[in-house]
Amino acid sequence: MAKIEARLAELGVVLPTPPTPVANYVPFVRTGSMLFVSGQICHAPDGKLVAKGKLGDAVSIEDGQRAARACAVNLLAQLKVAVGDLDKVVRVVRLGGFINSAPTFVDGPKVMNGASDLMVEVFGDKGRHARTTVGVAALPADAAVEVEGLFEVS
Amino acid sequence: MAKIEARLAELGVVLPTPPTPVANYVPFVRTGSMLFVSGQICHAPDGKLVAKGKLGDAVSIEDGQRAARACAVNLLAQLKVAVGDLDKVVRVVRLGGFINSAPTFVDGPKVMNGASDLMVEVFGDKGRHARTTVGVAALPADAAVEVEGLFEVS
Amino acid sequence: MAKIEARLAELGVVLPTPPTPVANYVPFVRTGSMLFVSGQICHAPDGKLVAKGKLGDAVSIEDGQRAARACAVNLLAQLKVAVGDLDKVVRVVRLGGFINSAPTFVDGPKVMNGASDLMVEVFGDKGRHARTTVGVAALPADAAVEVEGLFEVS
Repeated sequence: MAKIEARLAELGVVLPTPPTPVANYVPFVRTGSMLFVSGQICHAPDGKLVAKGKLGDAVSIEDGQRAARACAVNLLAQLKVAVGDLDKVVRVVRLGGFINSAPTFVDGPKVMNGASDLMVEVFGDKGRHARTTVGVAALPADAAVEVEGLFEVS
Repeated sequence: MAKIEARLAELGVVLPTPPTPVANYVPFVRTGSMLFVSGQICHAPDGKLVAKGKLGDAVSIEDGQRAARACAVNLLAQLKVAVGDLDKVVRVVRLGGFINSAPTFVDGPKVMNGASDLMVEVFGDKGRHARTTVGVAALPADAAVEVEGLFEVS
Repeated sequence: MAKIEARLAELGVVLPTPPTPVANYVPFVRTGSMLFVSGQICHAPDGKLVAKGKLGDAVSIEDGQRAARACAVNLLAQLKVAVGDLDKVVRVVRLGGFINSAPTFVDGPKVMNGASDLMVEVFGDKGRHARTTVGVAALPADAAVEVEGLFEVS
């Protein structure tokens, strides 16, 4: 069994079948060894949002972390479609975290750790990435978190 | 006549002479086959903004879409300066869409389709890109939309 | 003495010892000749924020510019750790500027010039970069500015 798939099973992470965008963009583009994955919002595998609304308002930090983790799971699901075998991931290069935030919310990094932690749980040191976290005024479907990813793949 | 230029003519898209930033940055940087184009706001060819203000407030979704399309036209104008011949575009790799949003606005992706659709109208399947769309609190000059682009070029 | 280090000394820029993120992400990831540096907020070398709060509200444009410059200094500090010798920087490819903004603030580019100017003061023409500037609802620790960077290195 592939190593990363085994690790996902150990962690109890089930990758959803990712939705195809209903528009003129695609879930990922590969150029050379770089794979750019489109921003993923915090859909659970059943299609519902893990958390809806703003951090610093209706959404707690704990729920925000669960939402960020769900975004990361959705990135992995797209990654698996892109490369077939997750053992081909050489490195998680960069995550961009967008936290749906009330203007007073200053703890975006704590929320974003939900996504970063999953990457390291799954890929170990290869999962350590550069990261940018910002608080945005609004997100698609009022999702609490959106995360985009850049991966080096073989 | 070059193929993509012919397609632009068919679509009635006129590329403006893009402005040079009046600061210590440049409209694009190429590294290897990757061309990073600076964020473009929704200037029309006459220099006026196609839409000013926030989605979910003064700007309708339709006007937002027109604004996003204008940003995409401005990316193409920079791209043409960068590579000379738009037939050298191998792939639209990624668009980052920033929608000037009231905190309640949740339809950023609909707005951003104005940019994505243009890329596919112009480049066909090569125009399909990874995409991240977020709603931001404010944009330069109160533009309704800003879009940045990454292109693979030959 | 290395050329860029000499230039920093001339400019009176002292690079701080950059903090290591206290989480599962890293300050930078290199893939090929591309170095992605995580978003840096406007910490001064003493660890205090150069400016806290929002542009268009508590923070003036001048203070915002100083904050953006501090972010750029922090990017250079990470870059030095990454490559050892700053003369190995081939090009500043892209800066992403996130300005903590009241919804009415439209002068993000003026603020971001604080970061862009430093890059050109330090690296000359190699410091000219593609740039995207947006106004965000909130930033980590209520920092006034956050900047991420992409560099080509040898």
